[in-house]
Amino acid sequence: MSLDLTATTTALATAAADLSRLLPGRTLDPVLAGLLLSADAGGVTLAATDRERGVRLHTAAVTHTDGQVLVPARPLAETLAALDSPDVRLVVEGSRLAVRTPSARFALPLLAAEDHPGVPAPPAVAGSVRGADLHAAVLPVASAASRDDALPVFTGVRLRAKGGRLVAVATDRYRMAAADLPWVSADDGLDVLIPATLFTEVAKQARGADRVSIHADEDRAALAWGSSTVTTSVLVSGLPEEDKLFPSTIDCSLTLDGAALAGAVRRVAPYAGPRGTVTLETGDGELRVRGSDPQAGEAEETVKAGVHGNRVSRGYQAKYLLETLRWFGEHEVRVDIQPGIRGTMFSHVTPPGAVRLRYLVVPLRQP
Amino acid sequence: MSLDLTATTTALATAAADLSRLLPGRTLDPVLAGLLLSADAGGVTLAATDRERGVRLHTAAVTHTDGQVLVPARPLAETLAALDSPDVRLVVEGSRLAVRTPSARFALPLLAAEDHPGVPAPPAVAGSVRGADLHAAVLPVASAASRDDALPVFTGVRLRAKGGRLVAVATDRYRMAAADLPWVSADDGLDVLIPATLFTEVAKQARGADRVSIHADEDRAALAWGSSTVTTSVLVSGLPEEDKLFPSTIDCSLTLDGAALAGAVRRVAPYAGPRGTVTLETGDGELRVRGSDPQAGEAEETVKAGVHGNRVSRGYQAKYLLETLRWFGEHEVRVDIQPGIRGTMFSHVTPPGAVRLRYLVVPLRQP
Repeated sequence: MSLDLTATTTALATAAADLSRLLPGRTLDPVLAGLLLSADAGGVTLAATDRERGVRLHTAAVTHTDGQVLVPARPLAETLAALDSPDVRLVVEGSRLAVRTPSARFALPLLAAEDHPGVPAPPAVAGSVRGADLHAAVLPVASAASRDDALPVFTGVRLRAKGGRLVAVATDRYRMAAADLPWVSADDGLDVLIPATLFTEVAKQARGADRVSIHADEDRAALAWGSSTVTTSVLVSGLPEEDKLFPSTIDCSLTLDGAALAGAVRRVAPYAGPRGTVTLETGDGELRVRGSDPQAGEAEETVKAGVHGNRVSRGYQAKYLLETLRWFGEHEVRVDIQPGIRGTMFSHVTPPGAVRLRYLVVPLRQP
Repeated sequence: MSLDLTATTTALATAAADLSRLLPGRTLDPVLAGLLLSADAGGVTLAATDRERGVRLHTAAVTHTDGQVLVPARPLAETLAALDSPDVRLVVEGSRLAVRTPSARFALPLLAAEDHPGVPAPPAVAGSVRGADLHAAVLPVASAASRDDALPVFTGVRLRAKGGRLVAVATDRYRMAAADLPWVSADDGLDVLIPATLFTEVAKQARGADRVSIHADEDRAALAWGSSTVTTSVLVSGLPEEDKLFPSTIDCSLTLDGAALAGAVRRVAPYAGPRGTVTLETGDGELRVRGSDPQAGEAEETVKAGVHGNRVSRGYQAKYLLETLRWFGEHEVRVDIQPGIRGTMFSHVTPPGAVRLRYLVVPLRQP
């Protein structure tokens, strides 16, 4: 095996760190804990897989000797991240890949590249979105997914082409988030469920990309931007149809400053009691946020609001309200309260960009 | 019970937060979880105790009705910290202390102030130091104390007056730190052991104080600055005499850039193997930092150094070297290596201020 290249330390370190973040799982199989480095005249490619997902990143390098080696991914990423030399040389020396700077040498063992299963090519492209739109849509939607792997369907973001828009939906059954964004595609056939944690990391890394292409077949999905490609097995779908859950009949509709409501809920939350519940109660031109706790005492804060409809009162988990309002920042928010314990919908009065976000929080049964 | 005052929110919130940080333990006794608020023409005093320690802080307020009440400390601190109104009013309303802003009311239950043991006055003053000196001395010294409460003597910082200086010492038996600083006092009799975590928090809060007075008697010690006083039971002393451990015979003495050595150790640390060991080896005008790990591979980095004495090689826990070098920042560091496995001393070539810091790290027995 041979390989010899010189690269800018920050570029190579960023690529190795991005790859580690896209494949965060620790594996006992040393071959799958390895990173495939391939150097040729075009630069260097970093690739890795945990069998469920595959990642491929490319970055510029001056290649002195073409070649491919497999080395432990995490030590390489840690070593590159810590270097303070502007350039770094990677060169095979015997049974080691040496990472060299003028004052230091780090020697990583070469793993058996021939045992590596390889990183599969992505399936066919279905369409593309802007990186900034994907970021604005996926972060809030993925935050509504469950972290409980016992129910895999709720750990995913469903991605579907629908009426010329791309719709992303996730729910953990206590709340649901949906975003739709501009979608450039030949057909409307896309419908896949992508793991939410992976999708969040991709959306962060692809934020600055002009286009992110989305690829899918029956078994796999892939996202590609710049010189990065991530392929993943898709989860088995089965999420509820989001349009059936969003409000049809509305008991009371409010418009208010999202940050003001978030501040009030945050201040009342220490008084939310053992169940963590705060009550929202509509009044004349205002919304009252209330909490009561046997130890801490009682709290009530009033937020100015435009109120249309009936006087209503609903209890919510304070943490779900805060996680929801977080995505609306300082914008004006519309709150649609449905009858009974049907979900309450939060949306922008005026969406700040090309992405439309709807967030549903299910109220608690009143004791 | 009565009490009615108006205060600047940030001042009152800072006092309540400082008090919580000085008394971080959760207690099951609701009376000890309470904060005594006393208001009079001079402002407001916040006081609390967990029986081991007592804290008293004073801040400005406009008192409308004098009085004293006991309320749950943590909810009050959280509520004040979250407020966005510039002023806040605290007023007794029935069996509640109401925390009021123009748009909100938080009502904390009043606890039985008559059951509170009170916060004792500090013992007699022994002397005083500058707040900045205390900060520069106590943070590095306290970092060498143990976090293991099973051996309380190693969780303390010994504070002793000696030859016109104040000497602070702590050790967890694997390393030892000592700092001495200017001390204004009538006599040289002070010798107390103060819990390291409390002392660190005091040093942070008192950093800007012109003078911090140190008080002690046989059972208690106290630190007072500005309008804050902290009293604590002292630990039973029994730390080794630090001067017997600092170098008498030196095998090899080095001078080098502390940040360069810290950077090299940080980069080699991922190769430190299952025991977390790196080797320092002296050469001609340089120090080599080496690590070897069965999985990750090998690492070696060279740091320029002035070298006087024998060629030596010693193994150390990488984390202890990093924690030590952290306190020397970008300064030039002197490293005195003693024969065998006697401790290696780190000190400033030129102390940057009035505080002299010495840090001893015990090398590992070579396998």
